[in-house]
Amino acid sequence: MKLATLRSNRPDGQLVVVSKDLARCVSAGRIAPSLQAALDDWERCAPLLAELAGHLEGGAIAGQAFEPSAALAPLPRAYQWIDGAGYMGHLERVRSLKGSKDEELQSIRPLLYQGGSDSLSAASDPIVVPEEDLALDFEAEVAVITGPVPMRPSREQAAAAIRLVTICNDVSLRRLVADDLQNGFGFFHSKPSTTFAPVAITPEGLGDAFRDNKLHLKVRIEVNGTLYGQPNAGRDVHFDLVDLIVEAARTRQLGAGTIVGSGTIANHHDEVLPIKEDGIGFACIAEARTAEKARFGRARTQFLKAGDRLRIFAVQSGQRPPFGEIDQSVVVLSPPS
Amino acid sequence: MKLATLRSNRPDGQLVVVSKDLARCVSAGRIAPSLQAALDDWERCAPLLAELAGHLEGGAIAGQAFEPSAALAPLPRAYQWIDGAGYMGHLERVRSLKGSKDEELQSIRPLLYQGGSDSLSAASDPIVVPEEDLALDFEAEVAVITGPVPMRPSREQAAAAIRLVTICNDVSLRRLVADDLQNGFGFFHSKPSTTFAPVAITPEGLGDAFRDNKLHLKVRIEVNGTLYGQPNAGRDVHFDLVDLIVEAARTRQLGAGTIVGSGTIANHHDEVLPIKEDGIGFACIAEARTAEKARFGRARTQFLKAGDRLRIFAVQSGQRPPFGEIDQSVVVLSPPS
Repeated sequence: MKLATLRSNRPDGQLVVVSKDLARCVSAGRIAPSLQAALDDWERCAPLLAELAGHLEGGAIAGQAFEPSAALAPLPRAYQWIDGAGYMGHLERVRSLKGSKDEELQSIRPLLYQGGSDSLSAASDPIVVPEEDLALDFEAEVAVITGPVPMRPSREQAAAAIRLVTICNDVSLRRLVADDLQNGFGFFHSKPSTTFAPVAITPEGLGDAFRDNKLHLKVRIEVNGTLYGQPNAGRDVHFDLVDLIVEAARTRQLGAGTIVGSGTIANHHDEVLPIKEDGIGFACIAEARTAEKARFGRARTQFLKAGDRLRIFAVQSGQRPPFGEIDQSVVVLSPPS
Repeated sequence: MKLATLRSNRPDGQLVVVSKDLARCVSAGRIAPSLQAALDDWERCAPLLAELAGHLEGGAIAGQAFEPSAALAPLPRAYQWIDGAGYMGHLERVRSLKGSKDEELQSIRPLLYQGGSDSLSAASDPIVVPEEDLALDFEAEVAVITGPVPMRPSREQAAAAIRLVTICNDVSLRRLVADDLQNGFGFFHSKPSTTFAPVAITPEGLGDAFRDNKLHLKVRIEVNGTLYGQPNAGRDVHFDLVDLIVEAARTRQLGAGTIVGSGTIANHHDEVLPIKEDGIGFACIAEARTAEKARFGRARTQFLKAGDRLRIFAVQSGQRPPFGEIDQSVVVLSPPS
């Protein structure tokens, strides 16, 4: 089952069921007005949504064309957005950056931070930054949306709480990361609104592509049409999505509609940019720059600037991107004076 | 105008208008089903809520008895909970604790952290902790609930966005604070669900008690009937509530229903516990322990333990506590084996 949220005159948008090929959708308003409302009452809503999806897929309901540009984030605002660090490859590459922390600690327990969730960006929203020189970066990640999770859950409870899977772009202002790390109070200023793909899919709806609490798909990143990376999100996973949920609930329960991110997807390799069509590359610019510094003595790849276009999408062979595409351009609020 | 949220069969509860003396209340369901819904449409709802409050106050509407124990947090779950550090006295006293950060930085820009907001505790909810030995502490704070705030707001925009004022208890697990600070990713594990007083009040409704973006009231804290502190929240404020909102919106907009906390209220003095009736004391145990260590060479006041009862309330002379009382007992999930 695939779900999306269409822009409407309400802040939480309009929940729709989307066809497997993302060509059509149908309003789920008679079941639940919003995705959060469906998550609040999932036992009742999930079978009804699945039935509606069956009718849409079978042609019993015609539905309407699904326009990804009309989609908000599946949860346009959420009560919780927790981002983890599941891929050691990312931490190893960025560890050289100023302010980074103890290596051993990070490999025993996953790092987590509490992200801002009051406004999550749509896949086609521009990335709006206040100034040009903040070293704007993306981070391509897997994200799951959960039901309620009790404090100190078992792995089985955590796995059963995964309602939906999608991908996201954890927008990062690298110039502010060091200050935030130094303060010790978290990535408050360096992580503005996170962007989500238009479509979220139940684990069942992903079939074999979601197993062992991992998304076994390549996630492809292009900047201005150039391939920056296509790491496989199912490989080189140090902490899987259930590890992250269990750690997140160590001292507290998690409410329905909590979003948990995998951290920047990273596969082990020693490439630099540009990569060829069969390269793996990177799911953030900071890693590419670190690899370039090691190889060439200096970073070559520039951070994002005003007007750049960023595309992020998961790849399923022979099919359209299952979650749709994140396709954003960069807008600077105050151009340099 | 005073607002509260009563427990109902919905996760966001039932919005009510409360009389000035907290004796009576009336459902605001015909105006907005929940406080978040009212905040989403404040220009329309605020005058209607004020009119309803007038009818309740004047006796045109009888209403029902307001039972604080039936109240949830004004926002039982919120899209954003940001806690600041407005009182240097608190930072100065706890700076000696392991893992604390640079002093100068903190006095120029206020520290902020992103708190979990998916489940905010009611004033009468128990404080549930997973283990006994986590050094359970309270932090009495002022909190404001805002409307939408644009990125990089003026001070005037930030002040105008303050919709409601209340007090809260930022529950802290001191034993986990040092680890969280060391990781640099924020207070993820050390700050479980924050507790809010039953009633939130508009700035206008507080009259002279809310001016210059500060709450000019004493906030009284008692543990098992013993006075621990009664600092005045309007004194010794290094960063006021507008400073905190402006800093929070430095790289991002804030959505309607954002809660911003003042940080632990702290007045300058050199007392230790126990204090007399005219003492000032402390709004958290960690500060009391630091003062005791300096005076006696060792901390005397113990952290909270199972069965302890904690009361926090603001004091307005000749009146009942304006926000009602936070009155919590401590429950340990897994007693020591």
